[in-house]
Amino acid sequence: MHHVTRMLETHPRGTVNEALARCIEACLACGLACTSCADACLAEEQLEPLVRCIRLNLDCADVCLATGRVLTRQTSFEPELARPLLDACAQACRICAEECERHADHHEHCRLCAEACRRCEQACEGLLSSIGA
Amino acid sequence: MHHVTRMLETHPRGTVNEALARCIEACLACGLACTSCADACLAEEQLEPLVRCIRLNLDCADVCLATGRVLTRQTSFEPELARPLLDACAQACRICAEECERHADHHEHCRLCAEACRRCEQACEGLLSSIGA
Amino acid sequence: MHHVTRMLETHPRGTVNEALARCIEACLACGLACTSCADACLAEEQLEPLVRCIRLNLDCADVCLATGRVLTRQTSFEPELARPLLDACAQACRICAEECERHADHHEHCRLCAEACRRCEQACEGLLSSIGA
Amino acid sequence: MHHVTRMLETHPRGTVNEALARCIEACLACGLACTSCADACLAEEQLEPLVRCIRLNLDCADVCLATGRVLTRQTSFEPELARPLLDACAQACRICAEECERHADHHEHCRLCAEACRRCEQACEGLLSSIGA
Repeated sequence: MHHVTRMLETHPRGTVNEALARCIEACLACGLACTSCADACLAEEQLEPLVRCIRLNLDCADVCLATGRVLTRQTSFEPELARPLLDACAQACRICAEECERHADHHEHCRLCAEACRRCEQACEGLLSSIGA
Repeated sequence: MHHVTRMLETHPRGTVNEALARCIEACLACGLACTSCADACLAEEQLEPLVRCIRLNLDCADVCLATGRVLTRQTSFEPELARPLLDACAQACRICAEECERHADHHEHCRLCAEACRRCEQACEGLLSSIGA
Repeated sequence: MHHVTRMLETHPRGTVNEALARCIEACLACGLACTSCADACLAEEQLEPLVRCIRLNLDCADVCLATGRVLTRQTSFEPELARPLLDACAQACRICAEECERHADHHEHCRLCAEACRRCEQACEGLLSSIGA
Repeated sequence: MHHVTRMLETHPRGTVNEALARCIEACLACGLACTSCADACLAEEQLEPLVRCIRLNLDCADVCLATGRVLTRQTSFEPELARPLLDACAQACRICAEECERHADHHEHCRLCAEACRRCEQACEGLLSSIGA
């Protein structure tokens, strides 16, 4: 988060916003965790029970990385876009977390990924509150 | 769209859905148009009036490409994720189209990009109707 | 390709280049085909033999979509970046095509995906020739 | 990097590799820095001298994020793809760093972005050495 905050501080018109920095950081971390969890699931011996998990991991990674990029942009910030995108990202994280939590006892990658998804879900909701959803 | 439909037809559990194929195709076309319009704006002599357009183009490209990827996946399709994502994508397209339309008389790339955004906005809304938003 | 060419023509400093338009189009089509094939593989009953195919599909989709975005940009075009990126994209397509071809007799999605990969591989090599690799 | 290492450690067949973890982390940090720098440049009063910087930032962000995703995957790791992709990513970072360094005295976002690019360039080269380029 230190890294995100430092970049945001250099923006000529940016105002440093802790909820924003936390959300960008959480989106990147969740995008990484989901990409990694999908791949780790693929290497498990019992693949069949993990098919839905892989699919939701791939979706969640795509949505989190796109959301992270959009949120990073401070020039002409558009709350009318940020709100539905944060809604979609929180929902992607929630659905993926619920699935990963079902496998958390058997697969450590699912347990860590669920944690990253829950952190990102909460960070999206925190930012929604702060921009007046 | 022919290409999208052919790929979707080969999915072992997929049902070919015209609204879905149209939306995936529109997302990819809009992602391309927005990436191209942002870059063409950057090469214009009068940059200042195009700053907001560039920013919204970049956002819209990110959201459309992520949405196109998510929609392409048919295994364990999750309408609870598709709905808010389609909402966000339609909104990104609408906001970007409104900005591009303001420059359409001066810049052909903005005119074409606004068209691609409007088609994608409508395709997202069409798909939302078909999956019961 | 018509769509790609029309957007490129509107660029204030762009020169319409058939090898470029073909490559951008092929990158997008291959990115779509690989995303779709990874997902279709996930829905097959016999998953184990398709694990490597899914992984390579995901890689190839990521590389093709990034390459398509970079190539779409004509402002301050940088051949020193385009060359190694086209090399990497051609290689991603070649490796993915070789794997998909092994499953083409059993899975139509792999057959179509291999075709899209081969077209993109050739389009990357064609563009490399045209920019003087 | 702590986060990346923890995820990689959970992979059923993964071997923890410091050069790999450093490179994934550097790719994500550079993707973020470049996305942020492009946007900060757009908000500067004197835009014209920054046009090439914005374009290269956008390219570098795309290449770094795709490379980061590919490297995160450990199932059926394919060095024949990793090598040219790391070459392309190192080159994207080098070219972007050179441009950002030209503006580093005037714009703190360019200075920080150049640092992130140089770290990622070196991390890609370090990983290339470790996998036998």
